[in-house]
Amino acid sequence: MNRPQSIERMIDVIKRLPGVGPKMAERLSYYILKMPDSEVNRLIESILKARQVMKSCSVCYNLSEYDPCPVCSDLDRERNVVCVVETPQDLIAVSKVKDYKGLYFVLGGALSPLDAVGPSDIRIDKLIKRLKSDNISEVIIATDTDSKGEMTAVYIAELIKKLGVKVTRLGYGLPVGGDIEYADEVTISMAIAGRKEM
Amino acid sequence: MNRPQSIERMIDVIKRLPGVGPKMAERLSYYILKMPDSEVNRLIESILKARQVMKSCSVCYNLSEYDPCPVCSDLDRERNVVCVVETPQDLIAVSKVKDYKGLYFVLGGALSPLDAVGPSDIRIDKLIKRLKSDNISEVIIATDTDSKGEMTAVYIAELIKKLGVKVTRLGYGLPVGGDIEYADEVTISMAIAGRKEM
Repeated sequence: MNRPQSIERMIDVIKRLPGVGPKMAERLSYYILKMPDSEVNRLIESILKARQVMKSCSVCYNLSEYDPCPVCSDLDRERNVVCVVETPQDLIAVSKVKDYKGLYFVLGGALSPLDAVGPSDIRIDKLIKRLKSDNISEVIIATDTDSKGEMTAVYIAELIKKLGVKVTRLGYGLPVGGDIEYADEVTISMAIAGRKEM
Repeated sequence: MNRPQSIERMIDVIKRLPGVGPKMAERLSYYILKMPDSEVNRLIESILKARQVMKSCSVCYNLSEYDPCPVCSDLDRERNVVCVVETPQDLIAVSKVKDYKGLYFVLGGALSPLDAVGPSDIRIDKLIKRLKSDNISEVIIATDTDSKGEMTAVYIAELIKKLGVKVTRLGYGLPVGGDIEYADEVTISMAIAGRKEM
């Protein structure tokens, strides 16, 4: 027999999620079909609630329940250093390093000509505007170390240098071709200590 | 900074799904946060709709939008042969084999003493009751070929033989230690052709 249409539809929607193949979508769908109502409600509510309360911080574009986010409104941090990351997940990873006390800026992606992602598709203009208005003395670029992240770092560094602001890139310690989000704290800490001027 | 509570909660709920580790739950959560409303609605609606319309067939316990399911209500099938499977997914896999024209019975699992799943936790009583009331001349056992599936097959076969009904088990062709759901059609077809009396 053919699979019932409503399960087919559910599998079809679930398999569009990142990292979920057809077999896993099928397994998840049958599992969700058999879940108690209370668990399904918890799943759906957690999604809707998070989507409802999370906003972009208007200063650093971090995802937060508050605007400005707790990092940007923390007056004890070094307010003249900004660490530039691609995503909110990357920000969380860097913020686990206790010896970094500066601020952040979330680009919202990396340049990628093959995917038609150009400078106007990520928040480069907003970063430059912030550097001009705030009193920033150093920008630490912590984009991923894959080709897109590297390209983005080089592109941004050129723009920032023109403003007369010091630009550094996370140094040795980071594995090449990797994703910052998955780096361990010690590695990120070493990379901050060994950062190099661009 | 710590991850916002509502994202933490969403990750926590999503990582309880089968096959989803903490990193994947995180990735899925951030992805779902950024999805357009229309896509989130589609995801949630497909889940709720499937849960609402799917029921267990009262004859074979297959998941279906109808009761009895399309297989059980198809009068062109051989109504004296029943293929016993563990799950509705296994039923779909077997039903792709065009040369099997009989009916089905979904046990809803396999015996597993280590997980405290005994005969009363799967539908063995209901299977025996159906074999007694319907005019069944052969039962083909198509439980998984792992130890739980084998144990279940042996246990059920003993009960069925007492009823004087022929019992067969899917034969060679199935890889040992595997899950029927992931077998290809040709392998299942060979296994049906080579089924052995128990």
